[in-house]
Amino acid sequence: MTAAAESSRPVTRASEVGSPVIALDAMGGDRGLDVTVPAAAEVSLEVECEIVLVGDERDLRDRLAQHRHDAKRIRIEPSEGAIGMGASPREALAAQPRASLPVAARLVARGSAVGGADALVSAGNTGAVILACAESFSRMEGVSRSALAAVVPTERRRGEKEDPFSLLLDCGATVRVRARDLVTFALMGASYAAIISKNPRPRVALLSNGSEPSKGTEEIVEAHKILSGLRSIDFIGNVEGVDIPRGTADVVVCDGFTGNVVLKMLEGVSETVRDLARFAYRSKLAWKLAMMLLATGLKQIKTLTDWQQYGGAPLLGFDRTCIKAHGRSGSRALRNAIKVAARCVRQDLAGSIAASMTELEGRAPSR
Amino acid sequence: MTAAAESSRPVTRASEVGSPVIALDAMGGDRGLDVTVPAAAEVSLEVECEIVLVGDERDLRDRLAQHRHDAKRIRIEPSEGAIGMGASPREALAAQPRASLPVAARLVARGSAVGGADALVSAGNTGAVILACAESFSRMEGVSRSALAAVVPTERRRGEKEDPFSLLLDCGATVRVRARDLVTFALMGASYAAIISKNPRPRVALLSNGSEPSKGTEEIVEAHKILSGLRSIDFIGNVEGVDIPRGTADVVVCDGFTGNVVLKMLEGVSETVRDLARFAYRSKLAWKLAMMLLATGLKQIKTLTDWQQYGGAPLLGFDRTCIKAHGRSGSRALRNAIKVAARCVRQDLAGSIAASMTELEGRAPSR
Repeated sequence: MTAAAESSRPVTRASEVGSPVIALDAMGGDRGLDVTVPAAAEVSLEVECEIVLVGDERDLRDRLAQHRHDAKRIRIEPSEGAIGMGASPREALAAQPRASLPVAARLVARGSAVGGADALVSAGNTGAVILACAESFSRMEGVSRSALAAVVPTERRRGEKEDPFSLLLDCGATVRVRARDLVTFALMGASYAAIISKNPRPRVALLSNGSEPSKGTEEIVEAHKILSGLRSIDFIGNVEGVDIPRGTADVVVCDGFTGNVVLKMLEGVSETVRDLARFAYRSKLAWKLAMMLLATGLKQIKTLTDWQQYGGAPLLGFDRTCIKAHGRSGSRALRNAIKVAARCVRQDLAGSIAASMTELEGRAPSR
Repeated sequence: MTAAAESSRPVTRASEVGSPVIALDAMGGDRGLDVTVPAAAEVSLEVECEIVLVGDERDLRDRLAQHRHDAKRIRIEPSEGAIGMGASPREALAAQPRASLPVAARLVARGSAVGGADALVSAGNTGAVILACAESFSRMEGVSRSALAAVVPTERRRGEKEDPFSLLLDCGATVRVRARDLVTFALMGASYAAIISKNPRPRVALLSNGSEPSKGTEEIVEAHKILSGLRSIDFIGNVEGVDIPRGTADVVVCDGFTGNVVLKMLEGVSETVRDLARFAYRSKLAWKLAMMLLATGLKQIKTLTDWQQYGGAPLLGFDRTCIKAHGRSGSRALRNAIKVAARCVRQDLAGSIAASMTELEGRAPSR
């Protein structure tokens, strides 16, 4: 333990039984070790969990020594190299089986009881993260497709913490879905939202091109019928695009193609508004003054569109938890991703999803 | 001709050969006659075209007398009642064959050479407008699905008029598409954009969940291959959601489900930003002052998201032109819709689309 590792805050110890073990892909993301190590160090001082940093051993030791951390809560698992952010997932994973991402995924697959971990956190190549999980984890019973669930900023707030966001899934793991997939996405999303927003009965909706049950693709119409018959979730029917920023539903369910377009469009909109504001700022004295006066208000809007505070998107459908942080994540986003992963383990997300599947299994044939 | 109809401006006469004849569904839209009559009256003083007001004869005569107009450019075609905005299109059209919308559509189908009209403009029930066109018009050769093309505000500007919007199609006419449909949407969208933005060679893209040609549904991947082989349009490949507000492409092509979600989400985003601004405005003196200073800048942003100035969305794929104005259209939006319709007739939109289809017919089998 280095001097930097001495914490002045009172902390409980990771050695306590049942403390979540989080495997962090320390080499992943646009900024790699520059953000993963500080994030892990800081979380170790705050949260009762163990973090396994998976990456180049010497680099990790050197960097860790530079940050105050709780050495009892951090360990290092050596790996070789990293999967490139722009690499083809299948080829890269086949060529680099010892890279940080697949090593971390296998560690989680093994489980914390036998020296592995409980959950994976990675800011790496999204396709590679999904594939690494598919290769190492088992799919939950009754789930045939996984879903990536992202948060989108909304006007309406929800849950005990008054979160100003709703959950959108799938955001790109499954481009083409069947009705049954949409139904499992709805159940998984509801379980996750209940844990993450402390919202015991989130309102779940299908995204469609009209609110009537007859609207949408045939998969949506069929999913609408099945969901209407389930008592375990609060299904409010179809919502339209206009309801996404409003926040009419707490969980919005769609196929991965639509979710990807929606999510990226929201990114584009924030970017455009920011650019317009910046341009205006430069152009006029009155604008400059106005912007100064508006500073606090703009901060409110920034908070609303600031994905960093929400940590990352869970990959749902596997027996293990995986939180995919944004590739551009800074240390704060990664800290939040680790905390979210720990909360999912502690509150048994997988068990909660499995329980909600029981009703579906009893009612609809698995096809 | 009433006193109000005397125009002080110099105008050319509609009796000139080849002047476009526009059939206006005068009873359609949320505001019906309150906006359709003033819009027609004003356009008659400005633009060389003839407007056929389709609606209740006596109401139309009474209202028209209250607005200055050029009586030589306006005529009335009697109809009975209106299709309700929330009505089921199929049932309503079957029950009300003499309503303003189907009468106007049949007038256009007949053609201006035999006393009918060249183009339809309606702010009515979208589904009913699409169905009325499908029932009365013929589909263009080589086109098996129609597409509704809406404008979306963008950061980048384009064309001779530096229009700050791009065209998105389909926005809801065809929920499920085949590759061939996406290709025809691309060709039709390019022809329309060339006319409307005076942009002789618009950049056309497919909306997908990644820029690589392999990304998207199998229909998108196949459409990408076909479009890459066409010389008659400037196909720039796939764009993502983030590119929509940026305005990377002049014409963005997608299925009607995705287009509907995208368009309605943009509406929701503007609405949310407006609500936040209004809330802020009420809450603080500094904000009030800032808002006053920002007024001109906000007007810029408002202009960007103001669909009223673009009139309406063309329904493409038929031998006749139809411009669907927003249900909430005011008189200005309707004026613009009528002008756009007249321009499409004058510049032979249908002929331009047919010409671009020739290359496709020669290359790809119609399936």
